[in-house]
Amino acid sequence: MSEYRHPYRDMQFVINELLGLDQFCQRFDIEEVNSELANAILEEAGKLGETVLAPLNRSGDEQGATLTEQGVQQTAGFAEAYQQYVESGWGSLTARAEFGGQQLPNLLGTAVNEVWQSANMAFGLCPMLGQGAIESLTHHGSDELQLLFLPKLVSGEWTGTMNLTEPGAGSDLAAIKTRAVREGDHYRITGQKIFITWGDHQMTDNIVHLVLARLPDAPAGVKGISLFVVPKFLLDSDGNPSEANDLKAVSLEHKLGIHGSPTCVMSFGDDGGAIGYLVGQENKGLAYMFTMMNHARQAVGLQGVAISERAYQHAVDYAKERLQGTGADGAQVPIIRHPDVRRMLMQMRASTEAMRAVAYLASMEIDRANHCSDAEQRLQHQGRVELLTPIVKGWLTEMAQEVTSLGVQVHGGMGFIEETGAAQYFRDARILPIYEGTTGIQALDLVGRKNLFNGGQLVASLLNEMEQTLTDLDSTNETTEVIAAALRSALRDANEAQDWLLEAASKDEAAAGSVAVNFMMLFGYLSGGWMMARSALQAQAMLETGSGDAEFLQAKLVTARFYCEQLLPRTAGLLSAIRSGSDSTMALDDDQF
Amino acid sequence: MSEYRHPYRDMQFVINELLGLDQFCQRFDIEEVNSELANAILEEAGKLGETVLAPLNRSGDEQGATLTEQGVQQTAGFAEAYQQYVESGWGSLTARAEFGGQQLPNLLGTAVNEVWQSANMAFGLCPMLGQGAIESLTHHGSDELQLLFLPKLVSGEWTGTMNLTEPGAGSDLAAIKTRAVREGDHYRITGQKIFITWGDHQMTDNIVHLVLARLPDAPAGVKGISLFVVPKFLLDSDGNPSEANDLKAVSLEHKLGIHGSPTCVMSFGDDGGAIGYLVGQENKGLAYMFTMMNHARQAVGLQGVAISERAYQHAVDYAKERLQGTGADGAQVPIIRHPDVRRMLMQMRASTEAMRAVAYLASMEIDRANHCSDAEQRLQHQGRVELLTPIVKGWLTEMAQEVTSLGVQVHGGMGFIEETGAAQYFRDARILPIYEGTTGIQALDLVGRKNLFNGGQLVASLLNEMEQTLTDLDSTNETTEVIAAALRSALRDANEAQDWLLEAASKDEAAAGSVAVNFMMLFGYLSGGWMMARSALQAQAMLETGSGDAEFLQAKLVTARFYCEQLLPRTAGLLSAIRSGSDSTMALDDDQF
Repeated sequence: MSEYRHPYRDMQFVINELLGLDQFCQRFDIEEVNSELANAILEEAGKLGETVLAPLNRSGDEQGATLTEQGVQQTAGFAEAYQQYVESGWGSLTARAEFGGQQLPNLLGTAVNEVWQSANMAFGLCPMLGQGAIESLTHHGSDELQLLFLPKLVSGEWTGTMNLTEPGAGSDLAAIKTRAVREGDHYRITGQKIFITWGDHQMTDNIVHLVLARLPDAPAGVKGISLFVVPKFLLDSDGNPSEANDLKAVSLEHKLGIHGSPTCVMSFGDDGGAIGYLVGQENKGLAYMFTMMNHARQAVGLQGVAISERAYQHAVDYAKERLQGTGADGAQVPIIRHPDVRRMLMQMRASTEAMRAVAYLASMEIDRANHCSDAEQRLQHQGRVELLTPIVKGWLTEMAQEVTSLGVQVHGGMGFIEETGAAQYFRDARILPIYEGTTGIQALDLVGRKNLFNGGQLVASLLNEMEQTLTDLDSTNETTEVIAAALRSALRDANEAQDWLLEAASKDEAAAGSVAVNFMMLFGYLSGGWMMARSALQAQAMLETGSGDAEFLQAKLVTARFYCEQLLPRTAGLLSAIRSGSDSTMALDDDQF
Repeated sequence: MSEYRHPYRDMQFVINELLGLDQFCQRFDIEEVNSELANAILEEAGKLGETVLAPLNRSGDEQGATLTEQGVQQTAGFAEAYQQYVESGWGSLTARAEFGGQQLPNLLGTAVNEVWQSANMAFGLCPMLGQGAIESLTHHGSDELQLLFLPKLVSGEWTGTMNLTEPGAGSDLAAIKTRAVREGDHYRITGQKIFITWGDHQMTDNIVHLVLARLPDAPAGVKGISLFVVPKFLLDSDGNPSEANDLKAVSLEHKLGIHGSPTCVMSFGDDGGAIGYLVGQENKGLAYMFTMMNHARQAVGLQGVAISERAYQHAVDYAKERLQGTGADGAQVPIIRHPDVRRMLMQMRASTEAMRAVAYLASMEIDRANHCSDAEQRLQHQGRVELLTPIVKGWLTEMAQEVTSLGVQVHGGMGFIEETGAAQYFRDARILPIYEGTTGIQALDLVGRKNLFNGGQLVASLLNEMEQTLTDLDSTNETTEVIAAALRSALRDANEAQDWLLEAASKDEAAAGSVAVNFMMLFGYLSGGWMMARSALQAQAMLETGSGDAEFLQAKLVTARFYCEQLLPRTAGLLSAIRSGSDSTMALDDDQF
């Protein structure tokens, strides 16, 4: 089985050259950060990922978490690996200094997270969920709650979970039934939550559950949901874990993938009510969830990049080793020499690089919004974050399905054999378009809240910026000319799709929902094409000045061109589908299905 | 978990209305067959599939085959189900009367096979492989071999296997190393074969292995491969199984899916050589394999239809039951009411119906070729079989990936939970683009042997026939006008792709290989669109004359339109990819990956 290799050069290129970390830091006077520091951090993360986390990826799949009377037992080796993660301070990278964080840009946190998710996605989910809890408490927790819980969450000494879903409340959180009853300075929580990732384990001496619940007198629907901190162990007066709270994992799901990540059914209050502490104000829980949603959804999109990168590396290794068929001299050749295998590898590579560039861009927009002092510019960056987030979550995770499936295909018959390892990426990846809001939910968010609700302003601004890139592309160079032609065509498709949507949505209430996923995918391919075009521009400029690694930059030009030739033109078919509207989608009666 | 329901109405429509079984039987004087008989057979097959095979699908997945000292033990219940299958005479449906067969058209055999593969693909593989053995022996076996083995294979009393692949010989059978040494009237076979489906089990008292091997003095490469019958138990003078032959299953693969189907590593000749009997002449084995390849590859394509149908039914059931979100009246609604869920279901439905029509068409072309007395027409039908086979195998199995993945997606979080059942179809389906020749191999077959090698004549003839359908489409009816426009556009794309290929292949040796899969997929979507257009024509004609089930026919029109609006336009992106040729696919050095 192949090892994970930190894709150092491409990460560096995206962070330092394409997105310009140094320029960003200079612009916002972030003196302590620069590309040199970024490179050093990436290198250290790579070591932990390659040597500690990646070797546990397989055993996590084969010997997943189990439920015993003492609670959930994680895969052997995970606790030690987690300890190393905590001791090296990785949990605190982007957190605020007041809680022990290092306050590094979100962009760097994203690059480092890619390493964890690539090395071992089931493991990586644990700190990923913790970041969600940190976000919620940082933005909405009282001083007291922050003081009690944030330093331990930031250090990683305790892990955090998000308890949202219930059997009857998945995509529709309005249907939540878990109850919270006031009792002095705290609340008593009763109810069952499902699909709780890392809901229990033995790696830390406490787990901080963030739980959505409803007060007895709460308004109906989403306006009556409150958010609570419900620790596994209550804290004593010194803030240390003591008495067990009234909650437990009652079962584990038997899943298609990510076996190393325990997915728990959590029961709160079997013994009178779990003690929980209100985050922020009553009935504002859903708004607080939205605060962290951008981060969490981008994090899942990033998992799409991460698992694609891993699948790509695995397939490349096999294609270089596996001999099959003969060359011109009659000798057996490695299958990487066969054009169709190369097409698959190039498709995996081009997809992954485009996905990475889009994910990192979106993550840097969060930094821009955070650091911008000018209110108007801040709003613009915030708007771009809002717009890109459903694309990152939706498009990247859908692309990961194709990439990991190609990873299986490159292996031929061996791909179907579990020991080969390619099938694990394919199985693990299948959760990505589902959790943290399905692809359909992302697409509805994109066409609705992020587009129609503001008259298409965010989309118009993005398309304008893409037009600018088009004019930058040199028409005298064959590669950039090909890229420009493809980008121009995709941009035209996007503009037509947007015009159609703005027009149709006012006349047909099923239109937006019927075309949403195709619309989201179109903008995904386009965003990828835009970033690959910008990558090509940057690579070409560097080659002209003789800076950087020429071999890498030439490969970047090839990959950008491949993307624009083979993947970007899919926007044409998507536009056709969008234009057909909702008629045939909605025409059948339920019982005709 | 949902039950399998025989898709009786759509099968009937394709067989009787779209392909015109009665007209076919009249034309070729097949007096004993008609649509009434076909309907009766389908109904009976449906019963066995629904009540006996489908209920074992899940247990086959959960309690797959195991290897013991007594050989491979199949899943509990499979032996009894197989017995019922044999006793009802299903194995003999299309075989020749002289060997106990019923000589029914291949088209009917295909429809019945769809039921088995849909109900329980892991089980269905066993008779499917047996049919391959029957084909080989029927066409190439000596009278003696036929007499000894065919009646028992046809009845299903014995099962058959195909032993092709070796660790170093997968797509490239020229690399086969298994040896056969002459010894009187038989041969001694020594070597190891891998990926042998149903290579061992306890359901029958003998198993007939067809084995590719190489004689000591054989020419190198594919011209030195011979085909042998190697029974698990040697036959006594009465033709009954007696002494065990020198062969055994030495291990089972741990696979992503189809767990109920034992995938064996077979060892021949550990004890001095397994006794084998030559099929046909020495060194002609590969040609004999090609005889059955059309049938076997179409059978795998059909599995793509079958598992898509099953995944569709499962998703529809869930979408009708699962309440999530609220309607205009504030009450919870089943998710089938949400436009994006409907889009997914329609995409699954339209894909499956198009796939079925293409698969059945290709299977009927085999009948036409078999029954045609006119040599020229016979050649034409045979040519059409040759052309359609890689499309059926390639496109249908790739489409099944998308359909079964959508099946998971419709279930949301529940789709990732194994107990739901949707994940099994997704896992099982993943083998389809791999075995019996990968998608890449199919595509190379299509662009090479079936196209470039004959100057594109087969493709030109197919495109001409499609043009005819275009002229039949009524431009005064909105639905058929939409369908015509989409078909016209896809036909233009196909013609351009073909022109490009004929031109480019002569100048660039990597061109055909680089574009092959995109070319195959383009012709797949087009073939599906053509059959859906013809289905719409037929449905419309029947509605106009008031014949048939109006509700079904109206749904067919909607589904055909949906296909042409949402899936057929993908040809545009594929054409773009094809036109880009091999440059960026082949530009990187091996070590730049």
